[in-house]
Amino acid sequence: MTSHPTSPRQLRLGLFVQPLGHHVGGWRATGDLGSPTDIAWLTRIARKAEDAKFDLFFVGDALATSVHRLPSTMARLEPLTLLAALAVSTRHIGLAATASTTFSDPFTLARAFSSLDHISQGRVAWNVVTSYSTEVARNFSREDMPDHAARYARAREFLEVAFKLWNGWRDGAVVADRASGRYFDDDKIQPINHRGEHFSVQGPLNISRSPQGRPVIIEAGSSADGQALAAQTAEVVFTASATLEEGQAFYRSQKQAVAAAGRDPRAVLILPGVMPIVGRSREEARETWRQLNTLVDIDNGLDQLSARFGMDLRAFPLDGPVPPVPGGEGNQSRIRLLTDLAARDGLTLRELAAVAAGSRGHRVVVGSAEDIADDFQQWLEAGAADGFNVMPAIVPEQLDLFIELVIPELQRRGLFRTSYPFATLRENLGLPSAT
Amino acid sequence: MTSHPTSPRQLRLGLFVQPLGHHVGGWRATGDLGSPTDIAWLTRIARKAEDAKFDLFFVGDALATSVHRLPSTMARLEPLTLLAALAVSTRHIGLAATASTTFSDPFTLARAFSSLDHISQGRVAWNVVTSYSTEVARNFSREDMPDHAARYARAREFLEVAFKLWNGWRDGAVVADRASGRYFDDDKIQPINHRGEHFSVQGPLNISRSPQGRPVIIEAGSSADGQALAAQTAEVVFTASATLEEGQAFYRSQKQAVAAAGRDPRAVLILPGVMPIVGRSREEARETWRQLNTLVDIDNGLDQLSARFGMDLRAFPLDGPVPPVPGGEGNQSRIRLLTDLAARDGLTLRELAAVAAGSRGHRVVVGSAEDIADDFQQWLEAGAADGFNVMPAIVPEQLDLFIELVIPELQRRGLFRTSYPFATLRENLGLPSAT
Repeated sequence: MTSHPTSPRQLRLGLFVQPLGHHVGGWRATGDLGSPTDIAWLTRIARKAEDAKFDLFFVGDALATSVHRLPSTMARLEPLTLLAALAVSTRHIGLAATASTTFSDPFTLARAFSSLDHISQGRVAWNVVTSYSTEVARNFSREDMPDHAARYARAREFLEVAFKLWNGWRDGAVVADRASGRYFDDDKIQPINHRGEHFSVQGPLNISRSPQGRPVIIEAGSSADGQALAAQTAEVVFTASATLEEGQAFYRSQKQAVAAAGRDPRAVLILPGVMPIVGRSREEARETWRQLNTLVDIDNGLDQLSARFGMDLRAFPLDGPVPPVPGGEGNQSRIRLLTDLAARDGLTLRELAAVAAGSRGHRVVVGSAEDIADDFQQWLEAGAADGFNVMPAIVPEQLDLFIELVIPELQRRGLFRTSYPFATLRENLGLPSAT
Repeated sequence: MTSHPTSPRQLRLGLFVQPLGHHVGGWRATGDLGSPTDIAWLTRIARKAEDAKFDLFFVGDALATSVHRLPSTMARLEPLTLLAALAVSTRHIGLAATASTTFSDPFTLARAFSSLDHISQGRVAWNVVTSYSTEVARNFSREDMPDHAARYARAREFLEVAFKLWNGWRDGAVVADRASGRYFDDDKIQPINHRGEHFSVQGPLNISRSPQGRPVIIEAGSSADGQALAAQTAEVVFTASATLEEGQAFYRSQKQAVAAAGRDPRAVLILPGVMPIVGRSREEARETWRQLNTLVDIDNGLDQLSARFGMDLRAFPLDGPVPPVPGGEGNQSRIRLLTDLAARDGLTLRELAAVAAGSRGHRVVVGSAEDIADDFQQWLEAGAADGFNVMPAIVPEQLDLFIELVIPELQRRGLFRTSYPFATLRENLGLPSAT
């Protein structure tokens, strides 16, 4: 670990970037509207994040326009080209790109991430996803997605091949001796000759070993398949735990799975996503949150809520109470987050629809810098998180407030770094080097 | 065209970048050896090329380590990530990436090039290739390559899909009206619903229309399939014509094919590759060339020559004359280039093997700046070229000499630009806008 012995364990913070904000109404609430395809805009965000000492600039992805109705998921820069451009405009921050194993090849992605790791001088992470929507399948000559188990089986072998490719070039393979005319040490460049169920790949890669050896591997997903794959291969796990208790349960279960896979549980960092709504006072934060939720399309919110609850909520009065939800399919923790919230705050169906549409089911923490730091500290100390993937609702305003108010509060408490001690992302995260 | 009416037709110049030089012995001859995976090194080259007003920074590619024995084709940065990084370090020069249609998907590549076009603000070109080697196939779960006709059939449909995807987003699709909450004009974002022999793609892309609408399309290959596809879809054609006569024949034939496809022949630029060996005098250039050819592995040269000639040359005395070559398969123009050269200069087999290995069959022009400008002017005026893809043998020395001596000589003759008049690559090349 990179913290010095007398300081408490420190949080790792990713910035989950939506260039127009994570809240559906965020782009309407900002006084400084950027464009999600403007590299200058993205560069400003990345430099802010680096000045604030975030661990990661994290970009999500989907291989289709999105039904979330976030403008920046309908039209966005492709993550690998985006991060390559940001790599030369930043020096320290980690750069995490989402890429799917279902619609690419191991040679292609292993090579691209190695290239990015060279370009960024060792600051790249790969958020491994398997894709899920029919819309994506139909952009890749399929009628529908492979089922969950098939996607994970492919992802597992995909990663196996990628790791072999990254290890096919050893340190010292480049000799570059002009006198003898020997540029490479051929013994340190090995084909992989992989033959598996999904892939046959000869190798080696056509790129030398990168500064980190391979990108930091990030995975998400709370399914059994997802947890099992993460236990074997992930170094950062991005989750969507809704409550502290759920966060603790996930944290415990994932770390146990890592240990059962023969790895040090400290070598896998668990970062739940969170949308902080920051104010200079608790009241200001609540007013921001209230205002944001007036900028939401209620019909869209009802659709999202209906899909999530597995029942048609249009049959219920909008200004009445939230109806009870039957058990069954769906993401139970996301459902409980919403129903608990409605019960606690006495929300009407209309109000809950606005919240659901606005935050898209992510955990929201509304308050002053102290409130948010308290929440983060509680999750860290209660064994529910090693840090967070922070999702600013309004960009730049909520990002700026988080940086101005919350980061210094975390630093005062000794919970967050004040400089980047190392050159590579993996070192700055306190993770073991790739071998 | 961008030339003003009183000036002669101007050359278009691409810089075909091998970061350690195009000659096999180039990396041993330089006094300043870079690394092909060092982004700072590539950025220096790109900035030099931009200061010199080159049209294009052109990067080749292959999806496997190469048998050419050029260090920079064994280990290199992946082109799309490389160019994204260079896009934010340059302002004017075009950026051309090679990418294969055989081992990618139209959605993936169309999206990545659109992203690059946004990041570079309209300076991107795609060099469309179909790959050819068994080594590549074996990195993508195949035993062997699809045959030539099958690769071109796929490439044709791949481009058709990519063009549809790029046109799926129209100008004005982004409204971004905060008051009404309307971010997109949905009428200007259309799925493509392509169903073809190789691909079924629903679309639309998840990125808005880029500054150029689509990348400038570059193609190479002198096969009948290649010429036919280029006639319909290419805007720049990269060739390897060996002699002026051959260049004229190719130029005439390709321009006629463009006209027959219903396009303006001036809307397709033909750029033969050429390796200039520049000296401050003709004698200095010849000495550089002679020195370079001593840095070549003769065994490798013999292998290359044997493969090219379709006969085993090891059976012949190394210091005797070059044996006559039987007709038949193989690239006849490349063979004739070599046998003509051997006859003219009275080369031994050893000497020809060195030349063949060194320049890898490309046309070499050895001389002073005047000699090289004369050659370029002759090709332009004789209807053999609209410009050249310039392949410096030694980097940085031969690139620097070309920039210091040849570019100013071409500018003095009114044959090359002295500034970039437009914002986008397509405009600077004098090509019609994408519709």
